[in-house]
Amino acid sequence: MNASIISVGQELLLGDTINTNASWIGQFLSQQGIHCTEVVTIGDDSVQITAALDRLFAENDVIIMTGGLGPTHDDITKVTLLRYFKDTLVRHQPTFDHVEGIFQRRGMPFSVSNHAQADVLSRSDVLFNKTGTAPGMWIPHNGRLLAVLPGGPREMKYLMENEVMPRLKVNNGDSAAYRAHYFQLTGIGESNLSDLLIGDTSTLTSESVTLAYLPHTHGITMRISSFAKDHEIALRQAEPLIDHIRQTAGEFVYSELRNDTIQATAVRMLTDAGKTVATAESCSGGQLAHFITNVPGSSAIFPGGIVAYSNALKTKLLGVPEEVLATYGAVSEPVALQMAKAAAEITGADFGLSSTGVAGPDGGTPEKPVGTVWIGFWSASKHFALKAQLYPDRLINKERSAVIALDILRRELAGIQNLPYGLNRKDSAK
Amino acid sequence: MNASIISVGQELLLGDTINTNASWIGQFLSQQGIHCTEVVTIGDDSVQITAALDRLFAENDVIIMTGGLGPTHDDITKVTLLRYFKDTLVRHQPTFDHVEGIFQRRGMPFSVSNHAQADVLSRSDVLFNKTGTAPGMWIPHNGRLLAVLPGGPREMKYLMENEVMPRLKVNNGDSAAYRAHYFQLTGIGESNLSDLLIGDTSTLTSESVTLAYLPHTHGITMRISSFAKDHEIALRQAEPLIDHIRQTAGEFVYSELRNDTIQATAVRMLTDAGKTVATAESCSGGQLAHFITNVPGSSAIFPGGIVAYSNALKTKLLGVPEEVLATYGAVSEPVALQMAKAAAEITGADFGLSSTGVAGPDGGTPEKPVGTVWIGFWSASKHFALKAQLYPDRLINKERSAVIALDILRRELAGIQNLPYGLNRKDSAK
Repeated sequence: MNASIISVGQELLLGDTINTNASWIGQFLSQQGIHCTEVVTIGDDSVQITAALDRLFAENDVIIMTGGLGPTHDDITKVTLLRYFKDTLVRHQPTFDHVEGIFQRRGMPFSVSNHAQADVLSRSDVLFNKTGTAPGMWIPHNGRLLAVLPGGPREMKYLMENEVMPRLKVNNGDSAAYRAHYFQLTGIGESNLSDLLIGDTSTLTSESVTLAYLPHTHGITMRISSFAKDHEIALRQAEPLIDHIRQTAGEFVYSELRNDTIQATAVRMLTDAGKTVATAESCSGGQLAHFITNVPGSSAIFPGGIVAYSNALKTKLLGVPEEVLATYGAVSEPVALQMAKAAAEITGADFGLSSTGVAGPDGGTPEKPVGTVWIGFWSASKHFALKAQLYPDRLINKERSAVIALDILRRELAGIQNLPYGLNRKDSAK
Repeated sequence: MNASIISVGQELLLGDTINTNASWIGQFLSQQGIHCTEVVTIGDDSVQITAALDRLFAENDVIIMTGGLGPTHDDITKVTLLRYFKDTLVRHQPTFDHVEGIFQRRGMPFSVSNHAQADVLSRSDVLFNKTGTAPGMWIPHNGRLLAVLPGGPREMKYLMENEVMPRLKVNNGDSAAYRAHYFQLTGIGESNLSDLLIGDTSTLTSESVTLAYLPHTHGITMRISSFAKDHEIALRQAEPLIDHIRQTAGEFVYSELRNDTIQATAVRMLTDAGKTVATAESCSGGQLAHFITNVPGSSAIFPGGIVAYSNALKTKLLGVPEEVLATYGAVSEPVALQMAKAAAEITGADFGLSSTGVAGPDGGTPEKPVGTVWIGFWSASKHFALKAQLYPDRLINKERSAVIALDILRRELAGIQNLPYGLNRKDSAK
């Protein structure tokens, strides 16, 4: 089954809003074995909407259209569809009552412009939106299917999951099966990974089994896509390639789950091991603690952390001696070592992680240019720091130092000797 | 001048990567008065690329195409363009030398598959990519213009700014002038803002002057778009609407800059006032410190913060009495008050901000459901906390508590009496 997405909204073209809806829908459809062939993003423009519907109906079984269903004057999707299908509007009473209730609970007048939210095309099957005020519409047309949804992400996702998918499943009888397998890697660059580790995969890939490298700020995601007549075959034909990646790049793989992160992995591993970690951050400025606490259940493994942004605070809260700061500077091995140790000692955690570096854009020197970071690690049996040279970009430097710290922890918990990026540890005398 | 964007890449359709490039390019083009009419996102597919080029060349002066220029087998953009233009490849020696240098510096073999990165269409004007390995290409075609760029965001932006824009400016002689004015607001919901404060704007807007509400996780951005024959008129005709918004919603406006954030605003205001802030976080888990330290120059106004995730750490580091925790629980007014005070006292900062709440998804109770947060504020003259009921979503709760804390600080620095969302302060007896 083929699908296309029409994203309606001037704000998307002007770049004020990023089209995360299309990405989510594409991902969601692929998980159901529905192949998304194209995303068209256009303004709130009747002519463009009509042209896109004509073109995409010719080539796709399904069209998912989002946006332009609100109550303001620039929301013209409904009126365009009325003309396209030569249809009329009818009031959907359950939606009317629901929207009226929303306004009442907010203590706000339920104005006439909001009444019209409950009007739908008479030929449509209403997709009741209990999370918001704009209902979706399901419109079969000449053997094709059109789902019209509001643009607000939460409402769109709710309607896709609860109203659109059941209807699509009914229609998706004999589509080809699609299976994807993911590898999440960090601690290595894409070139080295593909050229030096994974190598030539031409005997393991084909038209039905493909491999894609998806680099991102946290590392690299590798996606193996497998298309076949049924799910069993799709799974089985991808196994040789999956095994090859495990064999050659296993050390760098922190997860084989689709949407996993290094922080979720670290939290899982700590939970399984019954251990805890504390953080002492300077250049990452809270990002490391933030990543850890993004993970539900992290309170079981994270008592807390300190963001010692000033040198005075490094001394006062983390016991970094003033002489050490004066002699070596904040961005140095002894400071990273002491910060990691103090984080663990103060909190009683099993592990301490620290960061100290030059995030930029200011603060660089010839000896310590922007992007110079020291990451410290402390445990009862190991105490070391490593130095990395990151980027001329503050936000990337913050994020990367946090990711490297989490990867060091993962490798410790997994018993992996090597450090990320082939870096060497500077072990303190224990 | 009209433009369209073609985003090439299967990962975009599968939703593994979000199409941030198209948003950035759309924004960038609009700043130059170039009107982006459509974004087409397709797979690494020759047939689709060819069809998109045919269709969009007919309707647009400019096409910006990104993606598919890498060295792996699924990068087919160049080969497709060779056929489309019936052209041949030539080696661009400066690019070859540049890429060879990159590989040498990384200590990596410069393999033959990477040599081909330096090959370009003979009819193209090479857009030299000094930030990466894939050069862009500038291809005039029947009075239209095609810019072909790599998909990596940093490289794409570098080439757009340094290579594409100068060439577009040369061609953009008599395009209509476009001016946009932005308002960044927080502390109020979209309905209340538009219905109760801004109200009816029909006498202030027209086809040439439009108003859009762009809600997002940090609040609401309002964009006024003004199209006219020249820049002076475009600026002037939008003034009545701009003034109206300042009059009616001024309290909630923290900035009139396009890409501003509440944290950058807070850092600017603190810097101007010569003041400092420290943080004590529980439920926001480091996000507040992270937001502040994202802003260059924040080290001048932020000595640091404590993430006291466990109750033990709230007592040990922030002096929250055990009896208070036992009696009222961590998510309570006295705890928020003490945390904010301790943050400032420990660090010597002028202001202390705190957060304590139930981020979720677990931990909610009937009295304190998921989303219950207390935000604390301390200064030499004011000490209070406010309670908000946020969302059933952990990440949104973390982010919103941090944003509310920063907005409280902004209002204090701006001398605004009211608190966000019409909330009431619970003042501690001073």
